[in-house]
Amino acid sequence: MLLRNKLSFREIFRFTWKVDLWILLCCTVAYYIDTYYMKSHISVPGGIIGVLGTAIAFFIGFNNNQAYDRWWEARIIWGGIVNDSRSLARSLLSYTSHDFEAQQIARRMVQRHLAFLYALKSGLRSTNDDYYIRYLAADDLARVQGSFNVPNAIINLQSKDLQMLQQIGAIDEFRFKAIDELIVKHCDGMGKSERIKGTVFPPSYSFFTSIFIWFYVILNTLTMTETIGAWSIIFGWAFGFVFHVTHKNGLSIMNPFEDSHMGISLDAITRNIEINLLEALQAPNIPGPIKAQEDGLYIM
Amino acid sequence: MLLRNKLSFREIFRFTWKVDLWILLCCTVAYYIDTYYMKSHISVPGGIIGVLGTAIAFFIGFNNNQAYDRWWEARIIWGGIVNDSRSLARSLLSYTSHDFEAQQIARRMVQRHLAFLYALKSGLRSTNDDYYIRYLAADDLARVQGSFNVPNAIINLQSKDLQMLQQIGAIDEFRFKAIDELIVKHCDGMGKSERIKGTVFPPSYSFFTSIFIWFYVILNTLTMTETIGAWSIIFGWAFGFVFHVTHKNGLSIMNPFEDSHMGISLDAITRNIEINLLEALQAPNIPGPIKAQEDGLYIM
Amino acid sequence: MLLRNKLSFREIFRFTWKVDLWILLCCTVAYYIDTYYMKSHISVPGGIIGVLGTAIAFFIGFNNNQAYDRWWEARIIWGGIVNDSRSLARSLLSYTSHDFEAQQIARRMVQRHLAFLYALKSGLRSTNDDYYIRYLAADDLARVQGSFNVPNAIINLQSKDLQMLQQIGAIDEFRFKAIDELIVKHCDGMGKSERIKGTVFPPSYSFFTSIFIWFYVILNTLTMTETIGAWSIIFGWAFGFVFHVTHKNGLSIMNPFEDSHMGISLDAITRNIEINLLEALQAPNIPGPIKAQEDGLYIM
Amino acid sequence: MLLRNKLSFREIFRFTWKVDLWILLCCTVAYYIDTYYMKSHISVPGGIIGVLGTAIAFFIGFNNNQAYDRWWEARIIWGGIVNDSRSLARSLLSYTSHDFEAQQIARRMVQRHLAFLYALKSGLRSTNDDYYIRYLAADDLARVQGSFNVPNAIINLQSKDLQMLQQIGAIDEFRFKAIDELIVKHCDGMGKSERIKGTVFPPSYSFFTSIFIWFYVILNTLTMTETIGAWSIIFGWAFGFVFHVTHKNGLSIMNPFEDSHMGISLDAITRNIEINLLEALQAPNIPGPIKAQEDGLYIM
Amino acid sequence: MLLRNKLSFREIFRFTWKVDLWILLCCTVAYYIDTYYMKSHISVPGGIIGVLGTAIAFFIGFNNNQAYDRWWEARIIWGGIVNDSRSLARSLLSYTSHDFEAQQIARRMVQRHLAFLYALKSGLRSTNDDYYIRYLAADDLARVQGSFNVPNAIINLQSKDLQMLQQIGAIDEFRFKAIDELIVKHCDGMGKSERIKGTVFPPSYSFFTSIFIWFYVILNTLTMTETIGAWSIIFGWAFGFVFHVTHKNGLSIMNPFEDSHMGISLDAITRNIEINLLEALQAPNIPGPIKAQEDGLYIM
Repeated sequence: MLLRNKLSFREIFRFTWKVDLWILLCCTVAYYIDTYYMKSHISVPGGIIGVLGTAIAFFIGFNNNQAYDRWWEARIIWGGIVNDSRSLARSLLSYTSHDFEAQQIARRMVQRHLAFLYALKSGLRSTNDDYYIRYLAADDLARVQGSFNVPNAIINLQSKDLQMLQQIGAIDEFRFKAIDELIVKHCDGMGKSERIKGTVFPPSYSFFTSIFIWFYVILNTLTMTETIGAWSIIFGWAFGFVFHVTHKNGLSIMNPFEDSHMGISLDAITRNIEINLLEALQAPNIPGPIKAQEDGLYIM
Repeated sequence: MLLRNKLSFREIFRFTWKVDLWILLCCTVAYYIDTYYMKSHISVPGGIIGVLGTAIAFFIGFNNNQAYDRWWEARIIWGGIVNDSRSLARSLLSYTSHDFEAQQIARRMVQRHLAFLYALKSGLRSTNDDYYIRYLAADDLARVQGSFNVPNAIINLQSKDLQMLQQIGAIDEFRFKAIDELIVKHCDGMGKSERIKGTVFPPSYSFFTSIFIWFYVILNTLTMTETIGAWSIIFGWAFGFVFHVTHKNGLSIMNPFEDSHMGISLDAITRNIEINLLEALQAPNIPGPIKAQEDGLYIM
Repeated sequence: MLLRNKLSFREIFRFTWKVDLWILLCCTVAYYIDTYYMKSHISVPGGIIGVLGTAIAFFIGFNNNQAYDRWWEARIIWGGIVNDSRSLARSLLSYTSHDFEAQQIARRMVQRHLAFLYALKSGLRSTNDDYYIRYLAADDLARVQGSFNVPNAIINLQSKDLQMLQQIGAIDEFRFKAIDELIVKHCDGMGKSERIKGTVFPPSYSFFTSIFIWFYVILNTLTMTETIGAWSIIFGWAFGFVFHVTHKNGLSIMNPFEDSHMGISLDAITRNIEINLLEALQAPNIPGPIKAQEDGLYIM
Repeated sequence: MLLRNKLSFREIFRFTWKVDLWILLCCTVAYYIDTYYMKSHISVPGGIIGVLGTAIAFFIGFNNNQAYDRWWEARIIWGGIVNDSRSLARSLLSYTSHDFEAQQIARRMVQRHLAFLYALKSGLRSTNDDYYIRYLAADDLARVQGSFNVPNAIINLQSKDLQMLQQIGAIDEFRFKAIDELIVKHCDGMGKSERIKGTVFPPSYSFFTSIFIWFYVILNTLTMTETIGAWSIIFGWAFGFVFHVTHKNGLSIMNPFEDSHMGISLDAITRNIEINLLEALQAPNIPGPIKAQEDGLYIM
Repeated sequence: MLLRNKLSFREIFRFTWKVDLWILLCCTVAYYIDTYYMKSHISVPGGIIGVLGTAIAFFIGFNNNQAYDRWWEARIIWGGIVNDSRSLARSLLSYTSHDFEAQQIARRMVQRHLAFLYALKSGLRSTNDDYYIRYLAADDLARVQGSFNVPNAIINLQSKDLQMLQQIGAIDEFRFKAIDELIVKHCDGMGKSERIKGTVFPPSYSFFTSIFIWFYVILNTLTMTETIGAWSIIFGWAFGFVFHVTHKNGLSIMNPFEDSHMGISLDAITRNIEINLLEALQAPNIPGPIKAQEDGLYIM
C-alpha cells in the first residue's frame, strides 16, 4: 500500500517510464507516417476522434471501478479477519474455564490461529514462506503439511479442538456455537481471499481497452500532425500519458494480494493481529509492527 | 474463465472475426451509398453524430456494468458454496460422535454433498452429465431421479439424515442447528445460481444497444466518406470494432454459467471442493485439479 | 420476462410504433417551423446542442440504472422466496415427528404456504384472482378473507400452527426457532415486494427526463435542417428513436411486478415453487410448468 | 411521495417557477453585457464551453445518484420497520401463553410499539405532534416524557416487559431471544433513520455544483449571443432549465424524511402498520388508510 | 460535518483561496508563454483538448464517488455503533437480575463502554486525549494502559465481566449469547473504523488526477489565448476552479475521521451516546450535546 499522497517526479518516472517510452515511440512513428505517406491523401476529422477518446475514457473508468472494488473488497475481507481474530482470541481466553487443560487447549488454538493467518498470507502472496510453522505443534504440522490446502487443514484442526473443549466441559454449548461461528467466518474469509486471488479479471475487458488506447493515441497524433506538425509528438504523448497511466493505475490494484507496492499490506495486517494475540496470551518477545519502506513510500 | 492477460492476434481474430466481417461489409455499403447516391444531396454534420457515439458509449457501459455484476455475483455465489462445503464437511466430521453408525451417516452426507454439487453444476451448464451418481447410494439415486429438480431432492435427503443424526444422539441440538444452517445456505446458493441462469438480461437493453451501434457505424462512415473517401471504410471499421467488441465483451459474460471460455470455471471449482472433501474423508484415488486448456488460455 | 435475445422487426415496431409516430410528427413540425419561420433569423450552434444530448444521455443512464436495480432487486427478492419456500417445506417435512397429528399440521402448513404465495402474487400483480383459496382450509379462509392484507393474515396463521407444533412436542425449540426464522424471512420478502410495488419512482426524475428528450429532439432537428433540409426529419427521428427507446426501456422494467411482458415472471416462479412443494408432499395431479407465450417471446 | 407519472404544465410551473425566473434574469443580463460591453472584445469558443457543460452534467449526476441512494435507503429502512413490526406483533400474540396476565403484557407491548412508531415519525418529520401518547399507558408516558430521545426510551420499556414475560413463564428463552432480536432490529431502524436525517449531504458538493451551473448558464448565453443575438435568452434559459431542474430534483429527495411532497410517505406507512397491528389486536375503530392529496398528486 | 447548505463568499474564498491563486498563476504563465513563444508556431486544436477535459471529469467523478463512499461508510459504521451502544445498555440494564452485585457489574460495563467509545474516538481522530479514563475504574485503567490497542483491551475486559455475570447466575446463557453478539459487533465497528482510517486511498488515483487537471488547465489556457488573448487568464481560472474545487471536495471527505470541518462529527455522536447511556444509568450531571461552531457552520 502506498502511503504518501504525493509522489516525487522520480517516483512518477519510476512507475511510468516504460509506457512513456512506448507512447513516445508510437507517436513519433505516427507523425512520420502521416507526414511522409498520408498527409497528401486524407485528413482525419478531429471531432470524430474525440468521440473515440470519450468512449475509451468510459471504458477505462469501468475497468478502474471494478479494479477499485476488488481492491477494496480485499481490504474489507482482511479487515473482517482482523476483527474475527480478535473476537476469536477474546472468546477463547475469556469464556473457557480456568482449569489447566482447558487453558492449554485455548492457548493452543490462539497460536494455531496465527499459523492459519500466516499460511493463508503465504498462499495469497505466493511467497511460499514457512513463517507459520513456528505457531504449530509438531504433530499438527505433520497433519497439515502435504495437504492440498494448508490453511483449510489448520481450520479443520481448530474444529477438532473446539469439539474437545466442549466435551471436557470447558465451555458450554452456547459458547461452542459462538466460537464455531467465528471459525466459520474465518473459513469464509479464507475462501473470499482465494476467490479474489484466483479469479482473473476478464482479459477481454482490460486487454481490449489497452488496444483501444493505443489505437486512439495513433489516430490522435495523426489528426494533430496536420495542424501542429512535430509538436503532435509531444501532445500525443501527453494524451497517451493521461489515458495509459489511468488505465495502468487500475490494473495495478486489480490483484490486491500480489506482492506489489500497490497491493493490500498483508504483512502489516497479519503482524498487527499477531501483536494483539500475543499480548492477549501475555507472550514474551512480541515482535514490533512492520515498518514502511523507502522513506515512507509504501508498506507491504 | 480466460487465464491470460494478453491475447495473441490469432486469438483476437478468433474472438472477433465474425463481427469484423459484418462491420467491414456494412462500412463498404455505406461508403458506396454515400458516394453514388447521397453525396451530392446532403452532408451529415459530424458534431451531431458525435453525440450519438457518446450516448451509445454510455449505454454500452451500462450493459457491461450489469454483465460484470452478474458474472461477479455468480463467482461470489460459487465462492460461498466452496466455503460452505468446507464448513459442512468439517462440521460433519469433527462434531459427530465417534461411534460407527454416526460416522457412517456423516461420511454419507459428505459424499452426498459432492453429488449435490455435481448435479447442480450439470444443470447450470446444461450438460446433463451424470458424474454425480457416483456419489449417491443406490436407494438415494432411486429417490432423486425423476425429480423436477435433482439437486433440491438431494438436499431434502440431507435434512432427513441430519434429523436421524440428532435422533440417534450423534449430535446435540446446537450442532444440529449449525449444520442445518449450512444446509439452508447451500439451498440458497443453489437458488441464487438458478436465478442468474434463469433470468434473461432484458433484451430490450442489449438488443437495442446493438442496433444503435450499427446505426452509429453507418452514420459515422457516411460522415467520414465526405472528407476522406474510401478511407472511411477502414476508419469506420475501426470505430465499429471498438464499439461492437466492447458490447460483445459484455454479452460474453452475461450468462456466466454457460459452457463458454468466458464463464465461471465451474469444473475447476467443483473439482477443488471434491479434492478438499475427499481429503477430509481420507478417500483413496483423489482426482487431480482441472487443467487449463489450449496452452493456458482458459479453464472451464 | 422477455426470453429472446433478438427481436424481429415486427416486434420492434410493436414495442415502439407509438413513440416512432410522435417523434416523426415532432421532427416534421420542427422542420417546417425552421424552414418557414426561423431559418432567416437564427442558426442554432450544433456544438452547444451536443452538450445537451450528452447531458440527457447521462440522465437517461441514471434512470435506467435505477430501473434495472429495482427490477433486479425484485428478482432477488423472489429468488429468496423460492429458496426459503424450499427450506420451509424441507424443514417442516423432515424435522417434524412422525405421529399423525404432527404430520397433518406440517402438511397443512406447507399447503398454506402455497396459499400465501398465490395471495401475495395476486396482490402484486393487482389481478385479484383467487387461485390461492384452493390451498386454504375452510376455517382458515374465513379468518383471512376481509383482512386488510391477506398474505400477512396467512402468515399469522402459520405462526399459530408452529406454536401448536411445538406445544404438542412434534418439534423441539431449536427446530421451532429455525422454522420461525424462515417465517420471518417470508414476512420480509412480502414486505420488500410491497415496497417496490408501492414506491413510485420519483416522477420528477423520469418525467423531466422525458421532457428534456423532446426538447433535444426539436433542437437537434432545427440544427440539422439548416444543413441538410428535409433529411433532418429522418435523421431527427433516428436520434429521437435512440434516446426515447432507451428511456422507455428503463421505464418498462421500473415496476417489475406489473402484469407486463418485461416484468418478473411471477407466474412461472410461483408455479415452480408449487411443483417443488407438491412433489415434497407427494401430492397427486401436480400441474406442469408455465409455458412461454407467443412462440417463446416472453413468459409471465 | 409523488404518485403521478406525469405532471401537468401547472405543476411543472409550480415546482420550477422560482428557478425559471432566476435563469431568465441571469440570461438577460448576460445577453446585455455581451451585446454592449464584450462583443467587440472577445469571442468565447463554444467547444470549450461544451466541456464545462459535460463536466457539470457528471457532477449533477453524481449528486443525484447519492440523493437517490439516500431516498431509497430511507425507504428500505422503513420497509424493514414495516416487516419487523408485523413480525413483532405476530410473535407476541402467537407465541405468548394464553393466561390473562401474559396476554395483557403482550397486547400492551404491541400498542406501545405503535407509540414507538409515531414518536419516531414525529421526530423525523420534526412535527412534534403527540399522536403517539394515545398508545402509551399513563405511567409509561411519565417515564418517557422528558427523555433526550423519546422513541429510545420507549424501546427500553419494551425490553423490561419482555424480561417480565419470560420471568413469569409466558415465553421460553428461545422466544425471548427471537423477540429480543426484533427489538434490536427496531432500535437499528430508528438509528438508521436518525443517521439519514442527521447527516447533512456535504454542502461542498451540492452547493458548488449549483454555482458551477450558474457559471455555465452565463458562459453559454455569452457564447450564443454572438451567433443568435437575443434568441440566446430563450435558448440560455432552456439549457439552464435542464441543468438546474435536474440538480433541484436531486436536492428535493436528499432529505427523504422532510415534510415535503417528494419525501418518504411516513404518514401512509405508519398508518398501514397501525391498521395491521390493530387488526391483529382485534381492536375496534380501526382508522382508514391515509388518502392521497390534491387529486392524487402526492401522499404524505 | 458542515451544517449549512449554502456558503457565503467569504467561506468559499476561505476554502479555495490557495488553489485559486495557484490556478491564476498557472494560467498567467501559460498566457505569456503562448503569447511570446508559441503563438507563431502552433495552434492547439480546441476539440481535442475538450476530450481531455471530458476524460478528466470522469476520473474526478470516479475519485469523488469513492471518497463519498468512504465518508458514508464511516458514517454508517458510527451509526451502527450508536445503535449497538443503545442495545448493549438496554440489554445489560433490563436483562440482568436485580441483586446488588449483578447490577454493579452491569452498570460498570455500561460505563466502561463509554470509555471504549472515547478511547476509540481519540485514536481515530489522533488527538490522544484521555477523556475516556473518567469512565474506567483504577484497576481497569492499569490493565489497558500501555496496550498496543487500548479500545481492544477494554473490549477484552467487557468479555471477562460478561463471563462473570453469567457465572454468578445474573444472566442465563441466552442473554449471555445476545450480549456477546453485541460485544462482537462493537469489535467489528472498531475494526471497520480502523480500516477506513488506516487505508490510504490509492495515491496513484488521486495524485495523477490532480496532475492531469493542471495539465488540462494549461492546455486549455493555451488554446483560448489564441482566440481571446488575455481574457484566457480569467476563463482559464474559471475552468480550473470547477475542476480543481470538485477534485478537492472529494479529497476533503476521503479521510472522514480526520479532525476537519468536513469529517464525521464524532464529537457530537459520542456525546449523544454518552447522554443516552448516562440517562439509562440515571446518572447525575449529564453533559449537554455538542454545539455547532462558527455560527452554525459546522459541528465536530
